[in-house]
Amino acid sequence: MRLFDFALAPNPRRVRMFLAEKSVEIPLVQINTRERAQFDESFVAINPLSMVPVLELDDGTCIAESVAICRYIEELHPEPPLMGTDAKDKAIVEMWNRRVEFMGYAPASEVVRNALPMFEDRGLSGMPGGVPQIPALVERGKQSLGRFFALLHRQLADNSFVAGEAFTIADITAFVTIEFAKRADVEVPERGTENVVRWHAEIASRPSAAA
Amino acid sequence: MRLFDFALAPNPRRVRMFLAEKSVEIPLVQINTRERAQFDESFVAINPLSMVPVLELDDGTCIAESVAICRYIEELHPEPPLMGTDAKDKAIVEMWNRRVEFMGYAPASEVVRNALPMFEDRGLSGMPGGVPQIPALVERGKQSLGRFFALLHRQLADNSFVAGEAFTIADITAFVTIEFAKRADVEVPERGTENVVRWHAEIASRPSAAA
Repeated sequence: MRLFDFALAPNPRRVRMFLAEKSVEIPLVQINTRERAQFDESFVAINPLSMVPVLELDDGTCIAESVAICRYIEELHPEPPLMGTDAKDKAIVEMWNRRVEFMGYAPASEVVRNALPMFEDRGLSGMPGGVPQIPALVERGKQSLGRFFALLHRQLADNSFVAGEAFTIADITAFVTIEFAKRADVEVPERGTENVVRWHAEIASRPSAAA
Repeated sequence: MRLFDFALAPNPRRVRMFLAEKSVEIPLVQINTRERAQFDESFVAINPLSMVPVLELDDGTCIAESVAICRYIEELHPEPPLMGTDAKDKAIVEMWNRRVEFMGYAPASEVVRNALPMFEDRGLSGMPGGVPQIPALVERGKQSLGRFFALLHRQLADNSFVAGEAFTIADITAFVTIEFAKRADVEVPERGTENVVRWHAEIASRPSAAA
């Protein structure tokens, strides 16, 4: 097995944190997306969508999409559980992971990709022909992120972690989202989000945060 | 148990199709999002994000997010499996369901919400304060949908269904995406997508397509 990774990209970081929490080690292969390595013929054969991460199994099967890779690892290494235990718990973890993706990660990506000069003509990932930036998405994304921080703050008032009393994949997605948004100088506001600040410091102190 | 639904919205339709494939019946409660019922205090208590569908369990727990609801149903009613069987198969289904969501459903939503007059000032769902439409997203979304149709065509050349040889949740998401895009007059092109046309006709003939 090997994991096609890029050390500077947020989605591969989600998988690396997940693996670190499971104490699972998989050889990494760097695909430098800043140098367009994802569009090389050899990588397009691995993922026609030209995106990292991808987990290549020993039989040659290639699993793309961060959460699909995490699910495969969760099935093979159930302990500690990071995607829920019983039916209700699994559904709650999935709900929160998706809420974080749609309300947090997606707008963070909109802001970063449409604001930063390094993403000029790369408004969407995986598009070899180029996609123009849309400046209006920066402001819309920042407003959505404000709403996301408020949502997290409310949820973390009554819960130790994003999906309840256990650390899960939803914490990984939320932590990586917050770190990702910093690239466009979007930070968790200092006031009115104390629960997020408390939780973020806890997650940042876990060894997996350095993965 | 009851399912908060809206008969005219695409995400609740995904859950209704999933339930029909499982032969599971759950009482439906209509939340008319065209009349802003999702912003009523009573519904905000059920989903603070003001979106349907939501599954309310008998203990009062509310599960939002279509795929989280489907996962709960899959756990309770494993037959027929719609989210994969072993670790590898589950990962492949998750990969394809997510590819369809990100490459198909998300751009379809961008096109519909930013093009149709009925969504004026509703560029994102669940936002009570209103979100202006961004016309540039219509063209970008249409280009992404073209790429999505080509991806599906290639995948369906060697596979009976989106995620392989079995009907899964990925077929439901892809079918609902194609039906959703029609609202903005985006259709699967007649040429170069014969495999999609063949597959679409098969899915449309399943009883669940009427759910």
